[in-house]
Amino acid sequence: MASTARTQVAIIGAGPAGLMLSHLLHRAGIHSIVIDGRSRDAIEQTIRAGILENGTVDLLTSADVSQRVLAEGHRHDGIELRFEGTGHRIDFADLVGRAVWLYPQHEVLKDLIAARLRDGGEVRFESTATEIMDADSDAPRVIGTGADGHLLKITADFVIGADGSQSIARETVTGSRTGGHFREYPFAWFGILTEAPPSAPELIYSASPHGFALISQRSDTVQRMYLQCDPELDPASMSDPEIWDALQTRVGGGLIEGPIFQRDVLRFRSFVAHRLRRGRAFLVGDAAHTVPPTGAKGLNLAVADVLLLSGALQSFYETGSEAHLDAYPERALDRIWRAQHFSWWMTSMLHAAPDATEFDLQRRFGELHSVTSSRAGRTYLAEAYTGWPLATF
Amino acid sequence: MASTARTQVAIIGAGPAGLMLSHLLHRAGIHSIVIDGRSRDAIEQTIRAGILENGTVDLLTSADVSQRVLAEGHRHDGIELRFEGTGHRIDFADLVGRAVWLYPQHEVLKDLIAARLRDGGEVRFESTATEIMDADSDAPRVIGTGADGHLLKITADFVIGADGSQSIARETVTGSRTGGHFREYPFAWFGILTEAPPSAPELIYSASPHGFALISQRSDTVQRMYLQCDPELDPASMSDPEIWDALQTRVGGGLIEGPIFQRDVLRFRSFVAHRLRRGRAFLVGDAAHTVPPTGAKGLNLAVADVLLLSGALQSFYETGSEAHLDAYPERALDRIWRAQHFSWWMTSMLHAAPDATEFDLQRRFGELHSVTSSRAGRTYLAEAYTGWPLATF
Repeated sequence: MASTARTQVAIIGAGPAGLMLSHLLHRAGIHSIVIDGRSRDAIEQTIRAGILENGTVDLLTSADVSQRVLAEGHRHDGIELRFEGTGHRIDFADLVGRAVWLYPQHEVLKDLIAARLRDGGEVRFESTATEIMDADSDAPRVIGTGADGHLLKITADFVIGADGSQSIARETVTGSRTGGHFREYPFAWFGILTEAPPSAPELIYSASPHGFALISQRSDTVQRMYLQCDPELDPASMSDPEIWDALQTRVGGGLIEGPIFQRDVLRFRSFVAHRLRRGRAFLVGDAAHTVPPTGAKGLNLAVADVLLLSGALQSFYETGSEAHLDAYPERALDRIWRAQHFSWWMTSMLHAAPDATEFDLQRRFGELHSVTSSRAGRTYLAEAYTGWPLATF
Repeated sequence: MASTARTQVAIIGAGPAGLMLSHLLHRAGIHSIVIDGRSRDAIEQTIRAGILENGTVDLLTSADVSQRVLAEGHRHDGIELRFEGTGHRIDFADLVGRAVWLYPQHEVLKDLIAARLRDGGEVRFESTATEIMDADSDAPRVIGTGADGHLLKITADFVIGADGSQSIARETVTGSRTGGHFREYPFAWFGILTEAPPSAPELIYSASPHGFALISQRSDTVQRMYLQCDPELDPASMSDPEIWDALQTRVGGGLIEGPIFQRDVLRFRSFVAHRLRRGRAFLVGDAAHTVPPTGAKGLNLAVADVLLLSGALQSFYETGSEAHLDAYPERALDRIWRAQHFSWWMTSMLHAAPDATEFDLQRRFGELHSVTSSRAGRTYLAEAYTGWPLATF
């Protein structure tokens, strides 16, 4: 039997953006329903990296989502840029008095789901949205399929597309599933998980003549490392010794090796949707934008979007004015394009494209010297990496 | 009749690099001969822009080349970056406590020539160098044609190629006339000189959807302005009203118009020679590198080269050790590649390439917002624009 529901804000997607928005709306006394085609387990087990900006951590803790991030996350007061055999630390604490936290995205999701359920929030897992109707009216609807396999209709004042890079809401808002500005990169990251103690206390971004490598951490016993590779690389095509050889070569040695138990290839893409709003439908998070992983901005940008949008919705319900809703796209895009630039910058400063000339290579090293030898350059990078102040209405 | 001469340092090229090197060597008690195929008048009348870094002005004044630069040059304590209809000042004085001076290159040349002649320096105008011989020996020679049309041979301890972008010394040092790393840009600047009072007290770098424009000053009655254009543009193809329309559109109006009495097209090229030394032959200035004009680094980089090399030569004559001469290429290249990066950065941040996508355009504006809204970003730019500290041995 078809089921129907009514809420103030229907949110498609139980990722960080959708769940955080639902949580913030709840704290403002606004009812929402979150629907996601995946099961709770699937969501909580989707392992993705998580570098949380200072402001993201502040919001998680101050908005009563997670204290665990402080206890179980690892605060990093800097990163290292390594090139020409030398490490150059970007000392966040000294430069900007801020930090980032290493706390995987699935842990954020566990915290958000737990907080939503604790507060009586309505999160419908295994419920797939297929269409948004009447986005231009005061009563837009989400049409989909419930966990019982039957038709599901949710009528709301607003529909929010927080449904990730394969967003169906994007079609409603922009007119097509791919309606936006794209950029592809001619390389990817080959990522591994290995059972080993950390090789370094902080992330190492290493630009070597053999290609880029990133040494990252996951826990005391599991580490995450990445190698720049061809986007078409078959993750099974490299043996463990070949992978360790490549990693050691690119960082100048010193890595503690262990068994490799996961391999994947991350494509590099940049995307920003043409529009973030149509009538009563809005896009947030990966539905609105994709960034390459170099700048660690994906999750943080989603949180910035929904903090801004939650304020605009709260203002609407308190005053009846749509002024802040009208302002949301431009305000959100200001940060989105700065983050797109930062992600592109970190990517292009640290990676050689396959067709790079010797001029390009040497210019990049000139840039790395300029940035690391200037306190202003390091500060400019640190401001972006640790996160610009979060905007609110 | 063939004439011969003997000196310690033979310098090919009486541009800013060659003349300044000769002057600095003289102050260290080292004899040099400068030769240049052009006449003194031709050199002094080659009108080129001149934005002098703080350190360049300090050197001109402290080394007793010019006090005129302080009296007749215009100190600029900032520049304006203009985009999306708004100007953003980069306040050099506040950010880095330094400035730049607007003082055309031919005025620097007049000062340098006057100083060389005042000090009894040997500058052979209308004397063309055609070949360097025995660069790998202790007695390299410059072969050419004297002002009298006869064969000229100068034997020296060292030969310095300060002979600009069409350098013949480059062939000796690198093995070919074009031996280096190139980058071409798919646009150029269409420059004009106009009889009009200044439209603004400082330079305006304007990135508009119609293309880039630069509003610069020359004197109280003559102004220099530039429009981004196709490299193949015929300077005669635009009428005066068309030029003024394009300039006014790109900066948002407000320019004081006047008769246009010079037009030219400046190509955008980046170049760094493969090698800066072979045996007793060295490259400095444009012979060693070319930068696009956006960063105003050309003359300043030449001055930085020769300050460094003069110290290395002085050290050789005082101690007999070639250690500093050996170190010259790497030390000079450190600054050269940082300046290449800065020039590329200013160029690519401010210009849209003809094939730029909407993503590229928006990312650039994201960058302009990031840089101008961050004190660290503005400082990083100001440090480079006003000039990093000059290196010496």
